[in-house]
Amino acid sequence: MFDRNEVYQLARQWVVEAGERIRSSIDNPREIETKSNPNDLVTEMDKKVEEFFASKIRSCFPGHRILSEEGFGDQVSELTGTVWIIDPIDGTMNFVHQKRTFSISLAIYHEGIGEIGLVYDVMADQLYHAQRGKGAYKNDQKLDRLPKEKSLNQSILMLNTWWCTPNHIVDDEKVRELVQTVRGTRTYGSAALEFAYLAEGIVDCYISFQLHPWDMAAGVILYHEVGGLTLQANGQPLTMVKQEPLVAGHPMIVEEIIDRYIRLK
Amino acid sequence: MFDRNEVYQLARQWVVEAGERIRSSIDNPREIETKSNPNDLVTEMDKKVEEFFASKIRSCFPGHRILSEEGFGDQVSELTGTVWIIDPIDGTMNFVHQKRTFSISLAIYHEGIGEIGLVYDVMADQLYHAQRGKGAYKNDQKLDRLPKEKSLNQSILMLNTWWCTPNHIVDDEKVRELVQTVRGTRTYGSAALEFAYLAEGIVDCYISFQLHPWDMAAGVILYHEVGGLTLQANGQPLTMVKQEPLVAGHPMIVEEIIDRYIRLK
Repeated sequence: MFDRNEVYQLARQWVVEAGERIRSSIDNPREIETKSNPNDLVTEMDKKVEEFFASKIRSCFPGHRILSEEGFGDQVSELTGTVWIIDPIDGTMNFVHQKRTFSISLAIYHEGIGEIGLVYDVMADQLYHAQRGKGAYKNDQKLDRLPKEKSLNQSILMLNTWWCTPNHIVDDEKVRELVQTVRGTRTYGSAALEFAYLAEGIVDCYISFQLHPWDMAAGVILYHEVGGLTLQANGQPLTMVKQEPLVAGHPMIVEEIIDRYIRLK
Repeated sequence: MFDRNEVYQLARQWVVEAGERIRSSIDNPREIETKSNPNDLVTEMDKKVEEFFASKIRSCFPGHRILSEEGFGDQVSELTGTVWIIDPIDGTMNFVHQKRTFSISLAIYHEGIGEIGLVYDVMADQLYHAQRGKGAYKNDQKLDRLPKEKSLNQSILMLNTWWCTPNHIVDDEKVRELVQTVRGTRTYGSAALEFAYLAEGIVDCYISFQLHPWDMAAGVILYHEVGGLTLQANGQPLTMVKQEPLVAGHPMIVEEIIDRYIRLK
């Protein structure tokens, strides 16, 4: 039996607690001194935070499984039962170079359905959160549903500029055509936060072609709650158990992006 | 006679006051209702704020000139005397679509030398400020000088993804090579704030090929105070009186970017 509200309350509490730990470590000279370089710091922090979640989950919900990056999780090849999908630090380059604009991403799927999504902007202390069917929130503020209409040439697109350059995944020339079609582009460097920005309605679409489940699971739940659409770049539903190319956006433009501008190799 | 401290104190006071006016208008339903679309709102706000500065400057410093976008300024073809270079709202697309991450940019040049730079992130209430020779600050916090060393493959580059697509200004293929060389890219949508982020050291270089003086004048002063280098994309010094292609970054990488990756058409 899955008591969503109980799980939500604990998950939320743990995310905020993990965020506090990161904030108190990030400028601690002792923590930084002992590392040979900033990448070691983020790797260690990633592991510590994942271990923190894993230990809490194992203790409170021994029947639940964990899908995550750093190795404290389980082998998860399908979303049966209850699965926690966790990215302890989403946006590691921002963590290292900027010490801001990174997030904790935590999603809970039950029998294949995304029930709870939490994206925590750690340094800004802003929690984006959603339970399926109950709307998406930024702290205490309920986020508006997306506007009814949106055309591609009025849209702001988020993408990693890398996808406009020659690569093995996607036809970069078509991506450049997309860039010339939209109103403008933005690149922020944390997939989970980029979904949160989609849910806030401050950007309108997002393409990324090598996302892991933990990069997007929580964000997708948030975004669905305001009416956003997320698909694999081949038009199929996301599976959330493997790395997948993604197109997310206002429902009026996702199909157009996929049909006209995305050619997977 | 130019009393820099007096000018600085007043400029800073006016910038903060203008920011308060924008914040109180941006969510005022009466202001928004009367506009046929959000672009009218930003255009009107742009004009109002510029007029506010022009009126203060004319009244306190009748001998100073103003270089700005919306038409309350002067014809300025060289930086003789004292010139205020103002962008009332830098990042208008962010203003319209995001209601955040836009800024007021105000620079004061005296006899051709940048003396005072102010970049105000209005919604975050964060003021980046500098007087030549006295260091750059974010609110009350003095910003560190740039690290001694920086290599291109460890750098984060800011650019508008547009410059990776076919255009009349710059060889887009070379820009794509640059994107593949750096560690990562970011796009934030406000040139003045992007200079502020350079000055903070959270990004390492920035290319943009159609900047007006008011987009960059204040940011350049901030960035110089921490040791940053700014040049036209042809390697010449910026003139600050016309639209210019710009490369800014850590002094160890600017020349390499210009020599290897920028081919102006």
